[in-house]
Amino acid sequence: MDHNKIDELCSALKHRATVRNFDTSQPLEPEILDKLLEAAAQAPTTGNMQLYSVIVTTDPQRLKRMRELHAGQPVAENCSALLTFCADTRRFATWCTRRRTRSGLNNFSGWLMAVVDATIYAQQFVALAEQAGLGTCYLGSVTYDLPAFCYELGCPMGVTPLFSIAVGVPAGNMPAPSDRLPLEAFVHREKYHDPDAADIDRFYAAKEALPDSAKFIEENGKQTLAQVYAEVRYPGPLNQRISADLLDHLDLRQA
Amino acid sequence: MDHNKIDELCSALKHRATVRNFDTSQPLEPEILDKLLEAAAQAPTTGNMQLYSVIVTTDPQRLKRMRELHAGQPVAENCSALLTFCADTRRFATWCTRRRTRSGLNNFSGWLMAVVDATIYAQQFVALAEQAGLGTCYLGSVTYDLPAFCYELGCPMGVTPLFSIAVGVPAGNMPAPSDRLPLEAFVHREKYHDPDAADIDRFYAAKEALPDSAKFIEENGKQTLAQVYAEVRYPGPLNQRISADLLDHLDLRQA
Repeated sequence: MDHNKIDELCSALKHRATVRNFDTSQPLEPEILDKLLEAAAQAPTTGNMQLYSVIVTTDPQRLKRMRELHAGQPVAENCSALLTFCADTRRFATWCTRRRTRSGLNNFSGWLMAVVDATIYAQQFVALAEQAGLGTCYLGSVTYDLPAFCYELGCPMGVTPLFSIAVGVPAGNMPAPSDRLPLEAFVHREKYHDPDAADIDRFYAAKEALPDSAKFIEENGKQTLAQVYAEVRYPGPLNQRISADLLDHLDLRQA
Repeated sequence: MDHNKIDELCSALKHRATVRNFDTSQPLEPEILDKLLEAAAQAPTTGNMQLYSVIVTTDPQRLKRMRELHAGQPVAENCSALLTFCADTRRFATWCTRRRTRSGLNNFSGWLMAVVDATIYAQQFVALAEQAGLGTCYLGSVTYDLPAFCYELGCPMGVTPLFSIAVGVPAGNMPAPSDRLPLEAFVHREKYHDPDAADIDRFYAAKEALPDSAKFIEENGKQTLAQVYAEVRYPGPLNQRISADLLDHLDLRQA
């Protein structure tokens, strides 16, 4: 183990940040994007099945529509390419049908494998793109209107778009890395440690003390940062509606 | 864009492979593992919430039990550490409760965010560990007996173990990279391209022509490689049972 190399790698990674502003005057050549997408596909995948697909949007008209679907977020349009990663059990199932058998993955278990496969692939792509000097931004808003994304991207049964990633050359300086919980909050030794009140105070102290947190609380007329998260950003009724849509989508896809 | 650097990065990544044999005489120091787990946590995460946990198994007795749960796979025991990554909406919910609000993520939508968050974090860890010269192996068999893993690792409601990753110093030479589908099989331009019979033949030709594929077909008394996948490795009845268990687990957790 080369400790100096490990420190270097860790330090580089701890400075990464999501990029939301791209210099679109600097093109991302399609051959470069393909190279990155191909190399990233060497990432681990369940049983070597690659239960995923990625749909690349670069057409300006379609980027505009994708931005509308992504709740108007500018980064979805103002990027060199928008990549929408999908859980895909369909290609495997079609292969099975063409080879005198029937896929055993047209069910919730197969779908979960595909979600994990698609996400591993996406993150390998992001890690590679960042090392290559590109900027990336995940957009989770695909599930906010799954039928509209399926329609826009032509996803048939067995293909679930999960999230998009905007890619491009970063404009200006890199943003500062965002805060993270201390290691003890999410790394457990041998057994899961369920946090008590004192643990929670300690885990969230630094986040709650950030100047931005006070600003968010003030702007939203709340008393705590958790209230901003739970009542404004990720409220229960919205997520219950998304849950119902997801379960509808999965039932339909498995019919 | 530095094209030479990109070619170098892509080439390195295309040579990666899953490692199933570790030299456990070479220790992986706990401080090194913690450094890697901490740096990887700078990976993107939904709304900066880090909806994941990782449970580190290094105790020899527990590694032995984890191997039994992982269908006896030797790599689950013969490693320096076994990391079980969990979708975790519980810590966030506890924070909310302690801060005079209620999490809106105790539902299927919140669970899917947590699955994606946990997988992004896991793959960032794998990418970093591989760059540091370590070997890793994903084990998807956690879902094969979810209640047993929850019991063994002490996972309460709101915490779903998804997969384990075995880590250690690789023994001997690195294994050869495994085959991947051609880019056109999983990268779509603007719209999802649904493969027809000729596409499927082209996408799977190289995989089907591998010497290993003929061996798997022969060993299992099948006629096609797809039959080995669909009828032996990932059969429908097994995945239907796993699906039922997963849905039970999620219902319980959301009660």
